[in-house]
Amino acid sequence: MVYFTPGPAQLYPTVAGHLQTALDKQIFSQSHRSQAFKDLYQRADVALRALFGLPDDYAIYFTGSATEIWERSLQSLTAQNTFHLVNGSFSKKYLDHAKWLGRNAQVAEVPFGQGFYAQDLQVPAGTELLAVTQNETSSGVCMPVTDLHTLRQAFPEPLLSVDMVSGAPYAAIDFSKIDMAFFSVQKGFGLPAGLGVWLVNERCRQKAATLEGRQYTGGHYSIAALQDQYQQFQTPCTPNVLGIYLLTHVVEDMLAKGIDVIRKETEAKAQQLYSFLEESEHFAPFVSEPAHRSPTVVVANVLDKPASEVITALKAKGLVVGSGYGAFKDKQIRIANFPAIYQEKIDILVNELGIL
Amino acid sequence: MVYFTPGPAQLYPTVAGHLQTALDKQIFSQSHRSQAFKDLYQRADVALRALFGLPDDYAIYFTGSATEIWERSLQSLTAQNTFHLVNGSFSKKYLDHAKWLGRNAQVAEVPFGQGFYAQDLQVPAGTELLAVTQNETSSGVCMPVTDLHTLRQAFPEPLLSVDMVSGAPYAAIDFSKIDMAFFSVQKGFGLPAGLGVWLVNERCRQKAATLEGRQYTGGHYSIAALQDQYQQFQTPCTPNVLGIYLLTHVVEDMLAKGIDVIRKETEAKAQQLYSFLEESEHFAPFVSEPAHRSPTVVVANVLDKPASEVITALKAKGLVVGSGYGAFKDKQIRIANFPAIYQEKIDILVNELGIL
Repeated sequence: MVYFTPGPAQLYPTVAGHLQTALDKQIFSQSHRSQAFKDLYQRADVALRALFGLPDDYAIYFTGSATEIWERSLQSLTAQNTFHLVNGSFSKKYLDHAKWLGRNAQVAEVPFGQGFYAQDLQVPAGTELLAVTQNETSSGVCMPVTDLHTLRQAFPEPLLSVDMVSGAPYAAIDFSKIDMAFFSVQKGFGLPAGLGVWLVNERCRQKAATLEGRQYTGGHYSIAALQDQYQQFQTPCTPNVLGIYLLTHVVEDMLAKGIDVIRKETEAKAQQLYSFLEESEHFAPFVSEPAHRSPTVVVANVLDKPASEVITALKAKGLVVGSGYGAFKDKQIRIANFPAIYQEKIDILVNELGIL
Repeated sequence: MVYFTPGPAQLYPTVAGHLQTALDKQIFSQSHRSQAFKDLYQRADVALRALFGLPDDYAIYFTGSATEIWERSLQSLTAQNTFHLVNGSFSKKYLDHAKWLGRNAQVAEVPFGQGFYAQDLQVPAGTELLAVTQNETSSGVCMPVTDLHTLRQAFPEPLLSVDMVSGAPYAAIDFSKIDMAFFSVQKGFGLPAGLGVWLVNERCRQKAATLEGRQYTGGHYSIAALQDQYQQFQTPCTPNVLGIYLLTHVVEDMLAKGIDVIRKETEAKAQQLYSFLEESEHFAPFVSEPAHRSPTVVVANVLDKPASEVITALKAKGLVVGSGYGAFKDKQIRIANFPAIYQEKIDILVNELGIL
């Protein structure tokens, strides 16, 4: 089977080999307080810095999930006012976390399937954190990175927090123009689920320091605690070492291939998928604004039958695509275009969609 | 190498095979919202219920770590008063979490290397949660399960929360006499780290319900949210499916062998280790009270040389033991006696310790 699902997703082709090597070397029996683990964390750090072109002041923390980072970022970085761009289920969940934590959470909202135009947005003065979902996994809407940078220019005060869960590593964000970003590994990195990665700059750490002792900032998972451990390439509690090991090696594989190559391939495959959808009589792109169509999660309306029939027919051919999210479950299919999905697999999928 | 370290630890012998099967079946690409995942969670549930003899009213939740459960249990189950039995680094961390969360955290403390006698304890009226570390990984002190049951008889009011991180699955707790327990999988279950397991009874859920809406109970990770998802064998966020898969299969392997057999073997191996330490001129058991000597984490004083020399010499023979914890780093060694450590490995270790 080839998994075109938007996470958990097709494993990156090198995962099985790395896992076998790790078992042979007994990596998963080594103490997370050992030099061997510190070396692994440092190696992950070097690889991720190179992949994202991170400025020197960024730190890299590991959590159990990206969901956890919604909560921890709000606990460590905000006392009162947050602002959320909501256009789908995952951007709404960041907002939910802010409400649960009792924050004064303001929102700009557009309908499912639409994106934001940075120049039209107004963010209230006094906003501590501006939460943007760079790629909405539920609707297949992305925010072009240039708009992210425009947001920062227009609103330099709030910390700019970017959920790039299903956009990484494709999205070529200039990290000097945001303050933090996060993702989980079971999407664009093609890894088993169970690890969140949090990229945090000095400006975040300074803000976090002002809140320490004044509110609950997350205990063992506060930015202060994570940073304290990070300085020795350690973690506050026993982490998902297997996930960190695989991430490190897959990122190194991606670097060997070249992140520019991966981005160009992603764009070419996305172009192929959207062109097919536009020309098809049976399918159509869900996202009408071309600039907001995600290159990494392609959502298609199924025009003349229940989506479940398409999903079943494809599965019989060994191709697994995702169903629509929530209320769109039987009206749409979602196709992940992650780095693990090579060109030939897209060719096969487009061909099968064309003869359904 | 054989890892006698108290977590991460020697992998259970069947882990590599299960991992290969899961890769072949592409388990880690399947959606965590699929029926296949629900079936896996249900299978984990059945297996863990059988292993621990859980009463029907218990639910089983998954988290990123046992550390997270310290925090989540306090958020969901307490508004004000907690009481902690502290006799080592890990019991102290549960207390730390309570203080960070602003609870009125009371404590009974005994020196490192000592345990508690249930009949001597006094727990203040009004205590909401009584936190007990059944097996202190740092010092090798355990609380016999009969004392746990005595505690419940003497103090029926507070919720009795049992950290059995390095005691499970050996500790034969009567779960009708406690209210919740938790562990991580990289110790007694011999799995890669990155998964916490939380066993929660109806009494906890009732208490949690009284706090919902009155305080922050953990958002996506509150008992209410976890229970809501658990009822369909789902999780609030994408879980460590690989960890859940391996746990399920290793627990089934343990059930096939028989938990009674595993407990008897554990006791026999522990007896062998402690007898050796008592008779040795170079080593001695750290825990003086025999009833408080952990069968699963055996801590030895090294009498006539730095512990690092012993550790290095053993490593040269392919045997990895843990160092002492914290201030005892160079005075002690710690030997995990988990189910993955078969009798023949203990024979080899005892022999090598004897001729050092």
